[in-house]
Amino acid sequence: MAETRHAEIASPFILRLPVRFTHTDPASYVFFPRYFEMLQAVIEDWFTDALQQKYADLIIRRRLGTPTASIECTFLKPSRLGDDIAIAVKLENIGNSSFRLRFIGSVEGDIRLEAVSTLVMINLDDGGVRSIPPDLRTRMESYQAAGKAGAQKAGEPPHQ
Amino acid sequence: MAETRHAEIASPFILRLPVRFTHTDPASYVFFPRYFEMLQAVIEDWFTDALQQKYADLIIRRRLGTPTASIECTFLKPSRLGDDIAIAVKLENIGNSSFRLRFIGSVEGDIRLEAVSTLVMINLDDGGVRSIPPDLRTRMESYQAAGKAGAQKAGEPPHQ
Amino acid sequence: MAETRHAEIASPFILRLPVRFTHTDPASYVFFPRYFEMLQAVIEDWFTDALQQKYADLIIRRRLGTPTASIECTFLKPSRLGDDIAIAVKLENIGNSSFRLRFIGSVEGDIRLEAVSTLVMINLDDGGVRSIPPDLRTRMESYQAAGKAGAQKAGEPPHQ
Amino acid sequence: MAETRHAEIASPFILRLPVRFTHTDPASYVFFPRYFEMLQAVIEDWFTDALQQKYADLIIRRRLGTPTASIECTFLKPSRLGDDIAIAVKLENIGNSSFRLRFIGSVEGDIRLEAVSTLVMINLDDGGVRSIPPDLRTRMESYQAAGKAGAQKAGEPPHQ
Repeated sequence: MAETRHAEIASPFILRLPVRFTHTDPASYVFFPRYFEMLQAVIEDWFTDALQQKYADLIIRRRLGTPTASIECTFLKPSRLGDDIAIAVKLENIGNSSFRLRFIGSVEGDIRLEAVSTLVMINLDDGGVRSIPPDLRTRMESYQAAGKAGAQKAGEPPHQ
Repeated sequence: MAETRHAEIASPFILRLPVRFTHTDPASYVFFPRYFEMLQAVIEDWFTDALQQKYADLIIRRRLGTPTASIECTFLKPSRLGDDIAIAVKLENIGNSSFRLRFIGSVEGDIRLEAVSTLVMINLDDGGVRSIPPDLRTRMESYQAAGKAGAQKAGEPPHQ
Repeated sequence: MAETRHAEIASPFILRLPVRFTHTDPASYVFFPRYFEMLQAVIEDWFTDALQQKYADLIIRRRLGTPTASIECTFLKPSRLGDDIAIAVKLENIGNSSFRLRFIGSVEGDIRLEAVSTLVMINLDDGGVRSIPPDLRTRMESYQAAGKAGAQKAGEPPHQ
Repeated sequence: MAETRHAEIASPFILRLPVRFTHTDPASYVFFPRYFEMLQAVIEDWFTDALQQKYADLIIRRRLGTPTASIECTFLKPSRLGDDIAIAVKLENIGNSSFRLRFIGSVEGDIRLEAVSTLVMINLDDGGVRSIPPDLRTRMESYQAAGKAGAQKAGEPPHQ
C-alpha cells in the first residue's frame, strides 16, 4: 500500500511548504481555508517553475488571471504545526479556456489532502474568459505528457 | 427562473457578510480562499444563532471541534469589494458523528457560489471522532425540519 | 480608573466585531496579524458610515486608495474566541495627503489593544500620493470635531 | 548610499519570501496585514535555524509561546506580486521574559519596511509570562553577538 501511495504522489512538480503558526487553529491543526492559500502558492510556483511562465508576469504583464471556477477537496488526515507538506500537481485536463489540476498533499508519504480544481483563463482588464494562449498550452501539454510518463513507472519512489 | 433561484436560497438561517478589502485580490474579486473563511464564519453563527449553541463555548467549554472532512465549491460568478453576500445554510444530512451542510451565497438574489461541506464532530482533547451530542442532534433535526417546511413554499420571496 | 478608560474609548464611531475561529491561533488567542485585518475592516466602515463615503466606491469609482504608511500597536491583553471587540476610532491628525487614526480595541470596557496608524491617500491608477479631496477633508474635520466634543464629556459612559 | 543600505541589512539571519497573490490587494501591492504574517514566518525560521530551537517543538513540546506585546512598522515603499523580500532579523534586546527584534525587509537592497517587535515568553498551559529558558537565552546572546560582530565589519555608520 505504501508503494501505491508513493506512486500516486509521483509528479513532475512538487512544492514543499512548512505548516506555520499562521496556518493553524485552536485545535493545533491546519485551518482548512489555509490549505487553499497553500494551493494558490502551488499554482503560482507551478506556472513559474513547471510552465516557465513567471506567475507575476502572467498577472502584471500579460494581464491574464486564473480564477478558480470550482474546487473539491478531501482532508484525509489533519496536519500540524511543523509538518512539511509536499504538494504534487497533476494536470488532468486542458480545455479551450480552462484546465483541471489535481493536488495531492502529503507529509512523508502520508496523504493529508487531495483536491481537484478547475481554473479558468481570464483577461484581467475586462474579466472575460479567453483561450489559453498557445505558448502556455504547449507547455501544459508537455507537463501533462511528463506526468503520464512518470505515472507509468508506478512503484518507484517519488523523484523530489 | 428567478423564482426558482429565490426558492433555492430560502433558508431558516442566512448570514450577510460584506466583501471587504481583505477578501479581494489584484483582479478586484474575492480571492477564493477568503470565501472559505466566510463559510467558517457562517458555521459559527449558525451554531450560535440557529442551534443556540454558542460556537466559542462548543470549542472552549465543551472541547468539541467541527473540522471539515471534505468540501466542494462552485464559484458561479465573481463577487467584488462592496458586495453584500447573503449565505444561506441547508442541513442536508445528519450522520452519527458528521453532518453535511450546503451553502448558497448570493448577492441580491444572484447566486455567486454554492458549496457542500461535510463536517466531523471531534473531541479537541484527543482529536478523536465522537458522536454528535443528543442536545445538538435534536436542534439540528429541528433546523432540518424547518428548512424542509420552508422549501415547500417554493416561489415565495426569500425571508431574509 | 474604570471611568478614565470609559472616557478614553468614547468615540463618534465604534465598530463591534466578533473574535472568530479564523482569528485565533493554537494558544486560543487572536493571532496578531488578524487584528490588523480587523483594523482594515474598521477603516472601511469608518469611511462608509462616519465619513459617508462608501469605501468600495472610494476604491472602485474614485480610484483612491489609503495604504498604511506606518503603524504602531500595543497588545495589552489577549482576546479569545467568542469575545466581541469594540474598536473605537479617533482621528488625530489630518495632513495634506495623509491622516492619522488611533484605534482603541476593548471587550466590555477592558482595553485589549491600542494602535496608531498613518494612512496616505494615493491615486490607484499611478500609485502616486495625492491631496485628500475637499469633500473628504470636510467630513474628516467634522468627525474630528465630534470626537473632541465627545472627549470633553469625560467620565460619562461610552455612547455605543 | 546603496552601500550604506547593504550594510544596514547585513544580519546573521535573513529569510527570503516571495510576494504571492495571497499577499496582494486590489492595488496590486502587499496588503499590510500580510507583512505581519511574513514576520511571523521569519520569527519561526529564526527560532528554528538561528537559535536551533524548532519553533513547532517550542509550541507543541515545550508549551512555550511568543506572543507579540507591541509592534511598530514603517512601510517605506510598496512591494508587488513577484518581488522577493529578504527579511533580516536583529536581536536588539534580551529581557527577563521578553525580547525585542528589529526586522528589515528589502527587495534587491531596496528597503521596503522596517519593524520593531517586542515578544513575550509565555507558558501556553496557563498563559502566564515566564523567564526565557537558559538554553534559549544563551543562543539568543550568541545571535546578538554575531550581529554586533557583523555590524562592526561594515566600517560605516551603525545601523540606526
